[in-house]
Amino acid sequence: MPLNNSTSISSLKFDYDGVGDEMYHLAAELFPICRSITGNGFRQSLQIINKIIPLDVTEVPSGTHVFDWIVPKEWNVGDAYVKNSAGEKVIDIKHSNLHLLNYSIPVHEKFSLAELKEHLYSLPETPDWIPYRTSYYAEKWGFCLADRQLHSLAEGEYEVCIDSSLEPGYLTYGETVLAGETSDEVLISCHSCHPSLCNDNLSGMVLAAYLARYLKSIPHRYTYRFVYIPGTIGSITWLACNEDKVSRIKHGLVVTCVGDPGKSTYKKSRRGDAEIDRAVLQALKDSGQDFQVLDFSPYGYDERQYCSPGFNLAVGSLSRTPNGGYPEYHTSADNLELVKPIYLADSFAKYLSVIDILENNQVYLNLNPKCEPQLGKRGLYGTLGGRKEIKDFEFALLWVLNYSDGNYSLLDIAEKSGINFPVIKEAASALLTANLLSPL
Amino acid sequence: MPLNNSTSISSLKFDYDGVGDEMYHLAAELFPICRSITGNGFRQSLQIINKIIPLDVTEVPSGTHVFDWIVPKEWNVGDAYVKNSAGEKVIDIKHSNLHLLNYSIPVHEKFSLAELKEHLYSLPETPDWIPYRTSYYAEKWGFCLADRQLHSLAEGEYEVCIDSSLEPGYLTYGETVLAGETSDEVLISCHSCHPSLCNDNLSGMVLAAYLARYLKSIPHRYTYRFVYIPGTIGSITWLACNEDKVSRIKHGLVVTCVGDPGKSTYKKSRRGDAEIDRAVLQALKDSGQDFQVLDFSPYGYDERQYCSPGFNLAVGSLSRTPNGGYPEYHTSADNLELVKPIYLADSFAKYLSVIDILENNQVYLNLNPKCEPQLGKRGLYGTLGGRKEIKDFEFALLWVLNYSDGNYSLLDIAEKSGINFPVIKEAASALLTANLLSPL
Amino acid sequence: MPLNNSTSISSLKFDYDGVGDEMYHLAAELFPICRSITGNGFRQSLQIINKIIPLDVTEVPSGTHVFDWIVPKEWNVGDAYVKNSAGEKVIDIKHSNLHLLNYSIPVHEKFSLAELKEHLYSLPETPDWIPYRTSYYAEKWGFCLADRQLHSLAEGEYEVCIDSSLEPGYLTYGETVLAGETSDEVLISCHSCHPSLCNDNLSGMVLAAYLARYLKSIPHRYTYRFVYIPGTIGSITWLACNEDKVSRIKHGLVVTCVGDPGKSTYKKSRRGDAEIDRAVLQALKDSGQDFQVLDFSPYGYDERQYCSPGFNLAVGSLSRTPNGGYPEYHTSADNLELVKPIYLADSFAKYLSVIDILENNQVYLNLNPKCEPQLGKRGLYGTLGGRKEIKDFEFALLWVLNYSDGNYSLLDIAEKSGINFPVIKEAASALLTANLLSPL
Repeated sequence: MPLNNSTSISSLKFDYDGVGDEMYHLAAELFPICRSITGNGFRQSLQIINKIIPLDVTEVPSGTHVFDWIVPKEWNVGDAYVKNSAGEKVIDIKHSNLHLLNYSIPVHEKFSLAELKEHLYSLPETPDWIPYRTSYYAEKWGFCLADRQLHSLAEGEYEVCIDSSLEPGYLTYGETVLAGETSDEVLISCHSCHPSLCNDNLSGMVLAAYLARYLKSIPHRYTYRFVYIPGTIGSITWLACNEDKVSRIKHGLVVTCVGDPGKSTYKKSRRGDAEIDRAVLQALKDSGQDFQVLDFSPYGYDERQYCSPGFNLAVGSLSRTPNGGYPEYHTSADNLELVKPIYLADSFAKYLSVIDILENNQVYLNLNPKCEPQLGKRGLYGTLGGRKEIKDFEFALLWVLNYSDGNYSLLDIAEKSGINFPVIKEAASALLTANLLSPL
Repeated sequence: MPLNNSTSISSLKFDYDGVGDEMYHLAAELFPICRSITGNGFRQSLQIINKIIPLDVTEVPSGTHVFDWIVPKEWNVGDAYVKNSAGEKVIDIKHSNLHLLNYSIPVHEKFSLAELKEHLYSLPETPDWIPYRTSYYAEKWGFCLADRQLHSLAEGEYEVCIDSSLEPGYLTYGETVLAGETSDEVLISCHSCHPSLCNDNLSGMVLAAYLARYLKSIPHRYTYRFVYIPGTIGSITWLACNEDKVSRIKHGLVVTCVGDPGKSTYKKSRRGDAEIDRAVLQALKDSGQDFQVLDFSPYGYDERQYCSPGFNLAVGSLSRTPNGGYPEYHTSADNLELVKPIYLADSFAKYLSVIDILENNQVYLNLNPKCEPQLGKRGLYGTLGGRKEIKDFEFALLWVLNYSDGNYSLLDIAEKSGINFPVIKEAASALLTANLLSPL
Repeated sequence: MPLNNSTSISSLKFDYDGVGDEMYHLAAELFPICRSITGNGFRQSLQIINKIIPLDVTEVPSGTHVFDWIVPKEWNVGDAYVKNSAGEKVIDIKHSNLHLLNYSIPVHEKFSLAELKEHLYSLPETPDWIPYRTSYYAEKWGFCLADRQLHSLAEGEYEVCIDSSLEPGYLTYGETVLAGETSDEVLISCHSCHPSLCNDNLSGMVLAAYLARYLKSIPHRYTYRFVYIPGTIGSITWLACNEDKVSRIKHGLVVTCVGDPGKSTYKKSRRGDAEIDRAVLQALKDSGQDFQVLDFSPYGYDERQYCSPGFNLAVGSLSRTPNGGYPEYHTSADNLELVKPIYLADSFAKYLSVIDILENNQVYLNLNPKCEPQLGKRGLYGTLGGRKEIKDFEFALLWVLNYSDGNYSLLDIAEKSGINFPVIKEAASALLTANLLSPL
């Protein structure tokens, strides 16, 4: 996506409404599937994503050592319910797959209410919502339910049936690599292990899919790598299996929580001032919308692993409301009503702006560094003198000329000048055409 | 102007009221002249300045290549007017030389009102003011007038007469160099090409003249170079003709807009933290008055050229309200009523404060660096102990001693301590006398 | 005081109320003594401190050259009073030793009221308080008294008797050194020359004594040096006599004004970002209380000498309301009512927190730097996934692991994470035990 390319991102009239709807429909298709960090729900989800962007799928056997961790047994679940003494199903995975404690071991047994309650999880503060809970690394079983329902359970005997399997199998991940002019990579990573949660992970999965589809359609400088992995163990496994490729990753973003109404949030990479950090800040500033920026902290999503000290990759996370920041987080209320096409589309546009900056951020050299060149005779500057103000574009020309001394990239100049990156890019393009600038 | 010199700037009881009046009268004398970037109006102005401070005048032929530019043809104008069909002069350069689009080509022809209007410029927002417009590099003719007058022009035939010439000649500039102890230079540059505009350029021209006259009367460390040039093409021409001298310029200020009632404004050099930037900030802080500081931007006056990346000189601009910042800017209302002697005098005082700092800013070495020296036995410190506070001067002595370790100049110490520079300078002077300090 | 040591400061349930009372009683015992920069009052004070912590006492002869200063004659005083013409003692040192201008020369003579008044000092703004004034280096005599009393003195003849001696003798200082694992030293310095002033110097003297006694009872990494010196001339003398030891001092605090109700104040060392500066800021932040931080300035207490450019030691000052900052400063109102055990105890706790940070601040290396180690299997992390938040301690574990890359100390990590130092220390300790961390 070099300068002057007619298909460059910012010059394209992109149909954001259209892609917003497409992403939303894809999320709706993925929503009912019971995903976990391993198993058929994850595989089925990758097959659906594959319709938008072809994915290479990797299966890593249970028991594989990945740094300090071991790939766990594969988990699959058929039915799961709790029946009361009248034989009525009072909790049923068919109503919501959040009802089942994710990675529950198989059980078929009767319990008193008191015994059952030791395996029940609810949220007293939001009594109508089912929480999302997991127990990947301690073998347990349990059910999650609305607190209001928990308190309505009558004394008596309950029949618990969890028809699950936890057996040697595989951890599955998907990825696609879009080759660019250089082998330097931009990583887009999304965890894809959450079951029926829409903003936390589905929104990221669909944004990544449509971003990949779009980038596949245009030329670009960087190589783009999209990875669909289970959270934590997935990025650890990916890093362990692909350690030789890690040095290619120059910039990266963890994408999730991009469909809610909250303002955009950028969590910086551990480096804090990497080009990706500055590019995202510039894109958010250019959006004209409110946003927030958080320093890196070693909690959150897979940036925890990408930014562990042994890798320290330039990977941040661009979301709307981040993890734990909205009441619906990790509950049944993180659903297809919380996420809206308009917010998905807006997040998509911001990801494109970031990529536009990464693609076009370059250092140029002013070929006429002593005094200003005469822009007027080249038709780049108004000839009527004495005006109180000049145009933004004329101002951008002066900024690009003055700071293209070999030390400042276009992003530096956008930051210094306060002018939006697309205008700076356009000015650089005009100056290149006028032979007043050359790439360093 | 070394320390302990009895004629040093800050020890002098300067007659600021007197110099304010003198500058104002000089501005009044210069006001009616029709200046442009070339021509006799510019020459005549230098002759008037020459009465205050002798100037060397340089004439650069039209057609001379100066970096990316070419010195334009010389423009001169005799009469210029528009007559209505009744033969009455409705626009007449004799009433205001702003009426004529500066650099208008010669015309003597009749036009309909509609045809005429294509050559008329006015300001609807301030309908009684005549705008100042130029067309140096596109050959045009035109008239500027009050918007109210524009709308009162009746239908009919108009006779346009512009008795101007645009022919090979010269670009003129003036300069004076006041040799100091060292060949390191301080540049004071003022554009002098504007016709009847008082704050934007006349105020700078007169301040520079009286500053030069004053500096000529006292010893000084730096060599001072004052240049009177047309804007843009003038500084480009000067830099092209004097490239060998550029490396001598250690500090510089572009002076203009120093006579209006606005607060002082400092626009930093491109370097941003050059000594001149810090000296001006200190002087403005020491003034006790409100002020504003702007980062460098590649638009404004001739600092654009001095700070172009091929030169990157430490040249800022100290003004009151800067270009474009006051409603009268580039209109007939930027006149002898906007500018007042009191503001000229105040600006003059601030320029002197800056120069006082540049002249006296030096690194000294505490000759007694281990513990404080006993100031009391040298009469520099009160002998009565237990007082709640010490005097500013005593405090300044302690600051100068503590930080004169070879790493901090007096300006550094003023900045760190929050004590005004003149007090720090006085303290250093006393410590030198007491043999507690030596120049590094 | 290494990690995992069961007697480490923060793990100890310290009896702060008890030590507050003990410090207060010690201050009350010291209060009536007429101290000065030399003489028996100073010696007697050291003997009282010696009961809490054994001190080595050094006597430096009058006339000894100490850098730019000379150790003055020793001053002692017996009686001192002013009698009116009726023979009544109207001013009597027995009522307050502040009445006598400290270092007054001997006098026994009669004066008119007018003559007497030239030797009287009072504070019109606080007319009931006696000021504290000294004249160490100019031979004078005088009395200090309440302004209200000054104005009530009747005309008539007054008999002045000052039974003092100013003769060759010694300057006395005391010190104790508590050897630690390393010879690197922490200096705690308190001026001890003020007579009946309680917050300004007595509070520091008693805090230092009990701090030393406490540190003597536990193992510690650093060697701690406590010095009891007269202000200014004392630190100058100590530095001159101990120049060979100065390089051992890695961190230091000047302790005084630690018993008043004001918020804690830290005045930074001249270096400004030394470890002691950051440790004190962290301790004050961790306290959860309001506090203020001041940049270094070359006025105040003995940090002026320790931070003179020839030494530039990392010595700050941790106090409550600093010198000159409270109305009672250097008056008879700085007494046993201003200082309270509760404030002494709180200051003591803060000094301990600072020492806890210095003792435990170390750089560790994450032994598992690629991705997070699996904390859950080591019992360090909850196994129930999906929770909205993790515990502070779990968060601290992640911070310590992520930043223990060889570039960040525990203090760095506390600063970056916003987590209190004791929690960071505890996390590092747990990770050491789990073999996930090693000292660099």
